[in-house]
Amino acid sequence: MSRISLELGSGGKSMRDFIAGKILPAFGNRELAGLLDASHLPGGIAFTTDSYVVDPIFFPGGDIGKLAVNGTVNDLVVSGAAPRFLSLGLILEEGLEEADLDRILRSIRTAAAAAGVRIVTGDTKVVRQGQGDKIYINTSGIGKVVAVPRPRSVRPGDRIILTGTLGEHSLAILTARGDFGIEAPVRSDCAPLIFLLPFWKSGVLWMRDITRGGLATILTELAEQAPHPLIIEEESIPLSRAVRAAADLLGIDPLYLACEGRAVAVVPEKKAAAVLAGIRKHPLGRRAAIIGRVDGTTGRPGELLLRTASGGLRLLEPLTSELLPRIC
Amino acid sequence: MSRISLELGSGGKSMRDFIAGKILPAFGNRELAGLLDASHLPGGIAFTTDSYVVDPIFFPGGDIGKLAVNGTVNDLVVSGAAPRFLSLGLILEEGLEEADLDRILRSIRTAAAAAGVRIVTGDTKVVRQGQGDKIYINTSGIGKVVAVPRPRSVRPGDRIILTGTLGEHSLAILTARGDFGIEAPVRSDCAPLIFLLPFWKSGVLWMRDITRGGLATILTELAEQAPHPLIIEEESIPLSRAVRAAADLLGIDPLYLACEGRAVAVVPEKKAAAVLAGIRKHPLGRRAAIIGRVDGTTGRPGELLLRTASGGLRLLEPLTSELLPRIC
Repeated sequence: MSRISLELGSGGKSMRDFIAGKILPAFGNRELAGLLDASHLPGGIAFTTDSYVVDPIFFPGGDIGKLAVNGTVNDLVVSGAAPRFLSLGLILEEGLEEADLDRILRSIRTAAAAAGVRIVTGDTKVVRQGQGDKIYINTSGIGKVVAVPRPRSVRPGDRIILTGTLGEHSLAILTARGDFGIEAPVRSDCAPLIFLLPFWKSGVLWMRDITRGGLATILTELAEQAPHPLIIEEESIPLSRAVRAAADLLGIDPLYLACEGRAVAVVPEKKAAAVLAGIRKHPLGRRAAIIGRVDGTTGRPGELLLRTASGGLRLLEPLTSELLPRIC
Repeated sequence: MSRISLELGSGGKSMRDFIAGKILPAFGNRELAGLLDASHLPGGIAFTTDSYVVDPIFFPGGDIGKLAVNGTVNDLVVSGAAPRFLSLGLILEEGLEEADLDRILRSIRTAAAAAGVRIVTGDTKVVRQGQGDKIYINTSGIGKVVAVPRPRSVRPGDRIILTGTLGEHSLAILTARGDFGIEAPVRSDCAPLIFLLPFWKSGVLWMRDITRGGLATILTELAEQAPHPLIIEEESIPLSRAVRAAADLLGIDPLYLACEGRAVAVVPEKKAAAVLAGIRKHPLGRRAAIIGRVDGTTGRPGELLLRTASGGLRLLEPLTSELLPRIC
């Protein structure tokens, strides 16, 4: 008999097969089939949900509470909606230290205030020791639709903009876990992406935050929907020194590392420079870069290609194995 | 150092102290402070969330999937909203049998169709064995507001209507667990309460579904908000033979047992007979009864009193200890 494996939670190929094979057949409808980070509903509202099971619950640059607010806020932003209201569902493990819970609740409050959202409904369950792991959090979010992403409208020449460096969140979690004996001077990039909202009006056609599966997995999803192939340039991708060093040391590809405060967007060629300049003005977008383009001459529709530092072209696939369970 | 205990999840006094002491100070706002089952937001929409951790995941009359749909649907109905859209957040334990997951997804689909709601957004996380218990589900729900509950408007003489028998859900869970060696011929009452929606237009002032904490706990919450005390009559409360027998055997008070398809409503005296007759016409309301009233002469504001079968008056308190962990 088949059983659920950790890989299914990776955000990569196993998860997409799971969604395509089980979730869509069970609930298939227009909203779900779009596979947006949030669903657009009648009345101009967007709706999204995410559960957070990150281990450890405190890490450099954040904690599970901050993550739960920003993750859901960001899902709304990249789906074209201004975040407004969040729900908060807590699953607490018996024995959780009350001081830890207090710290997480304070962090949720601070993050909600910073993102301009209100926690308006909640629920708390408690499970016995050994039936959870300290705390799991679900946040669902409601936003006001400001734009409809149009992945099918991307055209050759459109630019792909990455809003910042890759992988700090993953590396911060690895450091906090003590896995691989890694001790990197790095903080999670966990942050609200609301500063990106105005750029929907500046011509952005499509946007996604870079979480499970990393940049490569998320761009393969765009490639599947777009009428033209995508090319990204390895040398254009901003990386911090710490992530570059850790990736080299561990043999991990930063293109598959999760972030919690970065997004990738597609913008028509003529508007790309202005959008990039605008993003760079914000502290969270300081290292934004044009990392590639929608391509008219190389590759075939559906493909995501990487031009490597040595000039070769490599086909990128979605993440196929679980690099880091419980990263978010 | 203080740690989280199972009692906090009871729906009783510990949980209310937790909400009053931690959640409201952290997030206090108009919507949360109302402590409705769902929050009413601008634009006439209602928003609610609930996580489901019931053990076992399959039980007579239902499963965790059916519960997760109906629980959130019912929270919307009793807060005065017509349920429209649900989110679905799955936390799966590594090793969960795929056949069990498939069965739960089918059950969710069936329950959503029966309640007239659509699952429009979702998320799946996987945790290692021993960090969960098969499957936990969060459903958040969006509904269209049709009425605003008015607990402060109840007046002496208003009738308290219970829509059916108490405690079948709890007893079905006990039976399925094999706790206390109980084997009762009983099925959970888990069901959608959408048939109650039209009665908001027939004069219902306040409604709640009877879940954690049971009828007594939920009515003490109304008593705290109402300007007059409440009295319920022990002999008027409908009980199935199985629940009555099990309660006697185990020394459990059915007034504190959770249901998943029952509600209690307050209706002005003049409209009570018509509302009761209407509810009774629906199969799920066949055993509805007037079980008490808002009182003008006995007791003090804030009190919930029980007139016992022997004619005495007893003050009812919210549930103070955890009868049944992970009942929903």
